[in-house]
Amino acid sequence: MNAQDLNKQKAAAFATRYIEDGMVVGLGTGSTVAFFLDALAEKNLNITGVTTSNRTAARSAELGIKIVDIDEVDHIDVTVDGADEVDAYLNGIKGGGAALLMEKIVAKNSTKNIWIVDESKVKPVLGSFPLPVEVVPYGSGQLAKKLASFGLNPKLRVNAAGETVVTDGGHFILDLNLSAIDNPFGLSEMLNQEIGVVEHGLFLGIANTVIIGGDEIQVKERRH
Amino acid sequence: MNAQDLNKQKAAAFATRYIEDGMVVGLGTGSTVAFFLDALAEKNLNITGVTTSNRTAARSAELGIKIVDIDEVDHIDVTVDGADEVDAYLNGIKGGGAALLMEKIVAKNSTKNIWIVDESKVKPVLGSFPLPVEVVPYGSGQLAKKLASFGLNPKLRVNAAGETVVTDGGHFILDLNLSAIDNPFGLSEMLNQEIGVVEHGLFLGIANTVIIGGDEIQVKERRH
Repeated sequence: MNAQDLNKQKAAAFATRYIEDGMVVGLGTGSTVAFFLDALAEKNLNITGVTTSNRTAARSAELGIKIVDIDEVDHIDVTVDGADEVDAYLNGIKGGGAALLMEKIVAKNSTKNIWIVDESKVKPVLGSFPLPVEVVPYGSGQLAKKLASFGLNPKLRVNAAGETVVTDGGHFILDLNLSAIDNPFGLSEMLNQEIGVVEHGLFLGIANTVIIGGDEIQVKERRH
Repeated sequence: MNAQDLNKQKAAAFATRYIEDGMVVGLGTGSTVAFFLDALAEKNLNITGVTTSNRTAARSAELGIKIVDIDEVDHIDVTVDGADEVDAYLNGIKGGGAALLMEKIVAKNSTKNIWIVDESKVKPVLGSFPLPVEVVPYGSGQLAKKLASFGLNPKLRVNAAGETVVTDGGHFILDLNLSAIDNPFGLSEMLNQEIGVVEHGLFLGIANTVIIGGDEIQVKERRH
């Protein structure tokens, strides 16, 4: 295992300390969460999982983690998810794995959100990771032109075969190549008002705890 | 034909005066637009249509109206659509036919928007018609609970057979039973910021011209 994967695994293993018997646990998506699912399954706790993607649902089922629909629970105690970038305010960019919509829905319905990342994800300013924007397919070409006219450098996401990526929700992804986001809150509000935008990858004020895997584990808490 | 349908047909026929040879025309959805499509087809103009629903696309094809995808045109000259309610500021509620998302995308990409309504649709205040909100299916139950806690009286739309209505975009509809909307602009912004809301039926500042069918035709223009 390479150093980055080791750091992901460290953060993932640490996060299982926050999970207790009987909890309803939101399960994120991505390579770091994959390590978390393995570590969680090993602990053999009696928990109920709420998934954020078809991938995570499938993997959880293989590991014997009970999964229910978000509308079958009356609350989610804690959600553990990864992030593509996180800044010093514990705001982040997510959606590199195209699961941002379900991830945000689960996060917003969770009492507590824990992010697990390797240290390479921590940045002074968000934006070197392209910001994923999940959009309605109909008119997405016109929307891309409009966002381009705002200087937001959108690029329709395609897979290795060059085919347009379709999310679990049936939408497309426009990745905004921004290099640095001067005003994440302003950009978030602007994108939310834009017709055709379903959701975007700016997760602001959502993470309560960020566990950073490196030579040592760092735990950062949002205090208020 | 009953009086209301006659009024719809009058407004629809009048709207064809705004359509000229060579135009790219957005084609709305609903019973009033159905009359417009008939009247437009009779005029035998050489226009290109951009559709707002699978239904309108199918009906246009039957009538011999050429239809292209919104991403195949570089602009839309004029869109003709109906409305479920329209107030004195030419703001309205749309989405009774569950096509609000594509309708709004086409409207926002149009140089000019014309609404055709019968006189029963004109109201002093919006909101007696339930406000449709198009939402992501995943977590829509939690979202409905949240909107209910805000006093917005959401009701998941079902068809005559009691099955959940699924829009052309693969989403559900929550109808907000509000009776009167005190602040349409505030409610619009609030709903746009809500996770899981794809779009809503408040069409504010969109209509340039409203053609109202009654004993006489009334034409109202937004001046600025």
